[in-house]
Amino acid sequence: MKREDLTEKILDIKREKNLTWARIAETIGGHSPILITAALLGQMKLTKPQCAKAAELFGLTENEAKMLNEPPYRGSIPALPPTDPLIYRFYELVMVYGTTFKELIQEEFGDGIMSAIDFEMTMERQPNPKGDRVRLGMSGKFLPYKYYGNDETVPDYGFGNP
Amino acid sequence: MKREDLTEKILDIKREKNLTWARIAETIGGHSPILITAALLGQMKLTKPQCAKAAELFGLTENEAKMLNEPPYRGSIPALPPTDPLIYRFYELVMVYGTTFKELIQEEFGDGIMSAIDFEMTMERQPNPKGDRVRLGMSGKFLPYKYYGNDETVPDYGFGNP
Amino acid sequence: MKREDLTEKILDIKREKNLTWARIAETIGGHSPILITAALLGQMKLTKPQCAKAAELFGLTENEAKMLNEPPYRGSIPALPPTDPLIYRFYELVMVYGTTFKELIQEEFGDGIMSAIDFEMTMERQPNPKGDRVRLGMSGKFLPYKYYGNDETVPDYGFGNP
Amino acid sequence: MKREDLTEKILDIKREKNLTWARIAETIGGHSPILITAALLGQMKLTKPQCAKAAELFGLTENEAKMLNEPPYRGSIPALPPTDPLIYRFYELVMVYGTTFKELIQEEFGDGIMSAIDFEMTMERQPNPKGDRVRLGMSGKFLPYKYYGNDETVPDYGFGNP
Amino acid sequence: MKREDLTEKILDIKREKNLTWARIAETIGGHSPILITAALLGQMKLTKPQCAKAAELFGLTENEAKMLNEPPYRGSIPALPPTDPLIYRFYELVMVYGTTFKELIQEEFGDGIMSAIDFEMTMERQPNPKGDRVRLGMSGKFLPYKYYGNDETVPDYGFGNP
Amino acid sequence: MKREDLTEKILDIKREKNLTWARIAETIGGHSPILITAALLGQMKLTKPQCAKAAELFGLTENEAKMLNEPPYRGSIPALPPTDPLIYRFYELVMVYGTTFKELIQEEFGDGIMSAIDFEMTMERQPNPKGDRVRLGMSGKFLPYKYYGNDETVPDYGFGNP
Amino acid sequence: MKREDLTEKILDIKREKNLTWARIAETIGGHSPILITAALLGQMKLTKPQCAKAAELFGLTENEAKMLNEPPYRGSIPALPPTDPLIYRFYELVMVYGTTFKELIQEEFGDGIMSAIDFEMTMERQPNPKGDRVRLGMSGKFLPYKYYGNDETVPDYGFGNP
Amino acid sequence: MKREDLTEKILDIKREKNLTWARIAETIGGHSPILITAALLGQMKLTKPQCAKAAELFGLTENEAKMLNEPPYRGSIPALPPTDPLIYRFYELVMVYGTTFKELIQEEFGDGIMSAIDFEMTMERQPNPKGDRVRLGMSGKFLPYKYYGNDETVPDYGFGNP
Amino acid sequence: MKREDLTEKILDIKREKNLTWARIAETIGGHSPILITAALLGQMKLTKPQCAKAAELFGLTENEAKMLNEPPYRGSIPALPPTDPLIYRFYELVMVYGTTFKELIQEEFGDGIMSAIDFEMTMERQPNPKGDRVRLGMSGKFLPYKYYGNDETVPDYGFGNP
Amino acid sequence: MKREDLTEKILDIKREKNLTWARIAETIGGHSPILITAALLGQMKLTKPQCAKAAELFGLTENEAKMLNEPPYRGSIPALPPTDPLIYRFYELVMVYGTTFKELIQEEFGDGIMSAIDFEMTMERQPNPKGDRVRLGMSGKFLPYKYYGNDETVPDYGFGNP
Repeated sequence: MKREDLTEKILDIKREKNLTWARIAETIGGHSPILITAALLGQMKLTKPQCAKAAELFGLTENEAKMLNEPPYRGSIPALPPTDPLIYRFYELVMVYGTTFKELIQEEFGDGIMSAIDFEMTMERQPNPKGDRVRLGMSGKFLPYKYYGNDETVPDYGFGNP
Repeated sequence: MKREDLTEKILDIKREKNLTWARIAETIGGHSPILITAALLGQMKLTKPQCAKAAELFGLTENEAKMLNEPPYRGSIPALPPTDPLIYRFYELVMVYGTTFKELIQEEFGDGIMSAIDFEMTMERQPNPKGDRVRLGMSGKFLPYKYYGNDETVPDYGFGNP
Repeated sequence: MKREDLTEKILDIKREKNLTWARIAETIGGHSPILITAALLGQMKLTKPQCAKAAELFGLTENEAKMLNEPPYRGSIPALPPTDPLIYRFYELVMVYGTTFKELIQEEFGDGIMSAIDFEMTMERQPNPKGDRVRLGMSGKFLPYKYYGNDETVPDYGFGNP
Repeated sequence: MKREDLTEKILDIKREKNLTWARIAETIGGHSPILITAALLGQMKLTKPQCAKAAELFGLTENEAKMLNEPPYRGSIPALPPTDPLIYRFYELVMVYGTTFKELIQEEFGDGIMSAIDFEMTMERQPNPKGDRVRLGMSGKFLPYKYYGNDETVPDYGFGNP
Repeated sequence: MKREDLTEKILDIKREKNLTWARIAETIGGHSPILITAALLGQMKLTKPQCAKAAELFGLTENEAKMLNEPPYRGSIPALPPTDPLIYRFYELVMVYGTTFKELIQEEFGDGIMSAIDFEMTMERQPNPKGDRVRLGMSGKFLPYKYYGNDETVPDYGFGNP
Repeated sequence: MKREDLTEKILDIKREKNLTWARIAETIGGHSPILITAALLGQMKLTKPQCAKAAELFGLTENEAKMLNEPPYRGSIPALPPTDPLIYRFYELVMVYGTTFKELIQEEFGDGIMSAIDFEMTMERQPNPKGDRVRLGMSGKFLPYKYYGNDETVPDYGFGNP
Repeated sequence: MKREDLTEKILDIKREKNLTWARIAETIGGHSPILITAALLGQMKLTKPQCAKAAELFGLTENEAKMLNEPPYRGSIPALPPTDPLIYRFYELVMVYGTTFKELIQEEFGDGIMSAIDFEMTMERQPNPKGDRVRLGMSGKFLPYKYYGNDETVPDYGFGNP
Repeated sequence: MKREDLTEKILDIKREKNLTWARIAETIGGHSPILITAALLGQMKLTKPQCAKAAELFGLTENEAKMLNEPPYRGSIPALPPTDPLIYRFYELVMVYGTTFKELIQEEFGDGIMSAIDFEMTMERQPNPKGDRVRLGMSGKFLPYKYYGNDETVPDYGFGNP
Repeated sequence: MKREDLTEKILDIKREKNLTWARIAETIGGHSPILITAALLGQMKLTKPQCAKAAELFGLTENEAKMLNEPPYRGSIPALPPTDPLIYRFYELVMVYGTTFKELIQEEFGDGIMSAIDFEMTMERQPNPKGDRVRLGMSGKFLPYKYYGNDETVPDYGFGNP
Repeated sequence: MKREDLTEKILDIKREKNLTWARIAETIGGHSPILITAALLGQMKLTKPQCAKAAELFGLTENEAKMLNEPPYRGSIPALPPTDPLIYRFYELVMVYGTTFKELIQEEFGDGIMSAIDFEMTMERQPNPKGDRVRLGMSGKFLPYKYYGNDETVPDYGFGNP
């Protein structure tokens, strides 16, 4: 069984039962809808209790439920650059603003990166008379590059060599 | 003269004069620091008055100042996927969360995209005892796909054919 | 079930029943034949009433009909650059005229793009004694880049940090 | 001398003299502004009289003027897919509508292609209260695939073999 | 049903029945053996009467026969550059002589291309005491680039805009 | 000035003065030789005092010294996969052991990654009668994926929308 | 039967039986857990006695057990660069530190490489109050490039030519 | 000096002196115009007497003339697939007819290839009332794969090993 | 039936029957073990009598045996560059020594290539006290580039044009 | 100074002085002509005495001579797959015979590789009445994969962590 087959099965049942992600996230609970959607699309894991609820909702086998509890091999886009226009726009933002992000984050924080692991995100509708807007909030921990000294201790790698 | 040569010149002078992007954005004014940084990195344009201030600050020739007023051929990353770890993390977010963005935006808004053109962004430091965080706010207009009818009018392309 | 399998099924039945796209678009109605063809090829969605008509015409299951109502993961070309000569010619036009489009649109409209979302298209035969011609009309909304100010308000991303 | 160096020189002088493409096309005359812009961007050729006018307008050397009279090695996009958002949107249209173009052109015309060589194009502003639109008209000769018979004549390639 | 599955089926039956392409082309008739082989390999279409003969020869279903009458999505090489040495040699000729073709065709004919659509080909054995040779004859219509004027007529794209 | 030109200059002077990396790292001091070598090869930054020492050692201009104090656009390999056999072997380890790393780190630590930012490394000679060995020690902080809740607070991105 | 199908089967049974790699490695024994995990993921081979134990543990057929005893076609990553963040971080280390490895290994050992074949590895948890760390130890034999002389002996390749 | 710089120089002088390839080939003589054009474009070599004539015609230095006598590093296309429409059409022929060439050549000749080395080519104008045609004649020696026996003789590679 | 499925079947049976390539080559006979192994891996063809023996040894159907008698679409490596370390080393030799091969073969033989078609190879164990060596002998016919004259004869391609 | 500039300089002088590789290798001495040619093409290093001779022969500066004594960043082919036919044929051998090499080397030697580092090569002319042949002899040490045990000793990486 491959994770993408499980994802396809979940999407089939979602369609069949007329479920929405909002409704699914509410039923499974415990995490943000973004995380739960991402997990069911094969990009994050669910906790065991969440897996049990997902199994009930989608009629999954025990092994399928266990698979939802495993960290997946991540990467949701069939090909890069993404061919889908909605997803491509995010890719375009990276292409256009990537060096700007680098300059401004480093000026403010020093040498390091914004974590994509210790990272949270929100997404919501922003009403606007000229046309509603998609509002994304992202917050990632700043991780400074570790600049370590030259410790003279001779490492012992335990391989049993002289 | 190529835009990347102008970018390189600006970075040389920024280094020489010990300028910061915050200071530069304040001097040029009128737009968000993100936009002004992006423009000087060759990804956005400045207005004519901003170009004049930039020319003064960086000692640019008249033709260089004019170039800053032109929409550039966008694309700031030397190669994709980006080799720089800070920029790569944003690319990784697209790879991991791309399909989640698609599902949730479409569930909320219908068939369409979040504009990367009618788009605003903020970036700031979020103090946190466990390590400060980078906070990004993004807001893009939702653009619904146009589903148009089958207008029977015969178009006239003006090429002078019978 | 994957969208490409549904597309393949639709093409099989089209062949079996000796249908034409013109005839199919007339039966399903409501949108331009271009949109309806694109939807059945997995690039656009149909409305629910259109899905019902498509289901009847092609003998689709309920879940297949629902799938036609979902925005697809777009991207119709098996590989880029396209290997099919008819499709390649369009790709060639982008390669040859891409920078010309950029210069002329920006000279006329300023910094921005022609939308591929708020976009209409017509295609028809243009009789010509030297050999008939394919006539394409395209109309996309011009979207100016948003050049926003530096709003001092401190955003609140609602993550509950201090 | 490379054609891209000549293109860069022309853009430098256009900037210096505050020229517009509209003005340049009017001065050089004889062809559509699209063709003249494309030629100066290194994608088409000019006639000898047009080259003379271009040489005068841009202060070109005799050899540079001659180069404008040669068919260039075409391909205007620095990298594919295009990183510039304006140009990318056209590429996206090919990705999304490519198979639709193929089905509809072939249903109407039979097996063949729309020529990208015997091809005309117009581009103009379409006023619209909701936001002006970019209007593109394209007209390419339909070229049917030649399905030839099995001529029994033994070809003679003239290489002097027995 | 995909065209490549039909190609695979045809090759299986060809093997089973000990057919040769020469024999197949003779049976189906009407076109050059090159065209008929290409069609059965999924690169060209057959006429309806040819499809009927092919269906009889290979024991095809009615839908399979209809598929042979459709213009295929062309592109016969699993990957480019081709890994098969025989096919690679042709690719190598393009790499080595491509710019020579361009210079000489343009010197003789002006700006344009040799059509790959209005195109004929022959292939045969050329006896030679030092080792027989493969003789290829190609003939493609020269298509001059259309250099069109700037017609002032305002096109009417029929979209019903003001 | 580009960082790679500075790297090339440093390598030229290193060669001219018969310097070794060991000697250079000792002179500049403060960090591990790995870090200092990486910084001079354009992959890490030096502190200001280290820059001063480097400037003296290599005879750098003030602006070159400042550049060494900036976080570089990282990515040291001219092309990927690396063509140099020594570097390729490390790439090969990732290809062969990548999924093993994933399984074992996740079994031990849960869902997350080993940081390449909060990361230390040692490299040394391991004498061995059958041929000396290269000994590498790596230590990276484990970063668990943040699984955050669904905070109901409405974020305020400060864009001034209603 | 393909090796990746066997890997998938092993992962299915591991999930079903709630096995851990630690437990599996202990049961199969004889090699480091890294090697055993890599072998079951299709990157290394097991000895015949290990195969017998693996066959018992996972309920493999005789042919499947034999396959585990064959050197596999190595390469565990679905696509390069790796899309999974955990694995990507190792790839990033190669990109950033590759040239540093080259300079320092060659300075210490001369012209040659660190073997990825005569190579050992350990991986373990390193407790740390600021967050535990992943500790990797690698040890590869240094292989000097063979600089051979110009032996005048005429080789005899045994092809029977004069 | 690189061969492409020499090619560029030759094209500059050809333009300056208003030379044609036909005229150049006639002056240099001895080989087909295709070969001479290809040599001057950096894809073939000239003989020493031809180099002398080329040197006189183009005013080349002695070292430049010698370079024309060396077999070049072949490959004339800046990028593959070719972006220039004229050259792309040849590439398209390989994509569409590649497998047909393979089937028909092998049916006629057995397992082997058509040589791209022992290869001749002609190109000429074929007058035609519907539009003149480009006529290409190609003739390459058929090279059968060598299926050799298992000669038991022990080869002696002359490395002096026991 | 695809050739790769046949290869997979042959490997399954080889495993099941505990065959070795040495034993297989001896049974099938007539060619070098390298050729026979390559043929069974889908890279060369067998003669009809060899196919009969292979069919008996592996229990192949008549159509499978016929397929072994056909020249395959060559290319044995799943992806290039090869991910398997053993095969990669050969690729590395091409990358490192490719230009050396070119210089030395051309200095000795003139402009041309070493044939990969009229080509023989041996492989064997070379005992050595420091570790046995793999000994490869290769012998390929030198093929000089054909430099042909400019034959004035007008070729007749037999297309029936005036 | 980059190694490729040095290679270009050496080739310029070789041309100017009418040197041959055979003559150069004889003058520099000490190693096989293959190694010396490879070193001067930027793929291997020379010893210091060899560098002195090369410096004299080619009139190199002291720093250039030192550069020849450094292990280069290897990889001699401008792009892969190689566009030059002579070099491509070697690449083709890897594509066609790669899996055969793998099967036969592993059957004879067990799991491991043929070293491309502890590797020797000869190349020579093999006279043959049907056309002379290029004879290559290769000999690489077989390196078995190290299958190591699970040593319980806790490694000490010397980073000073608790």
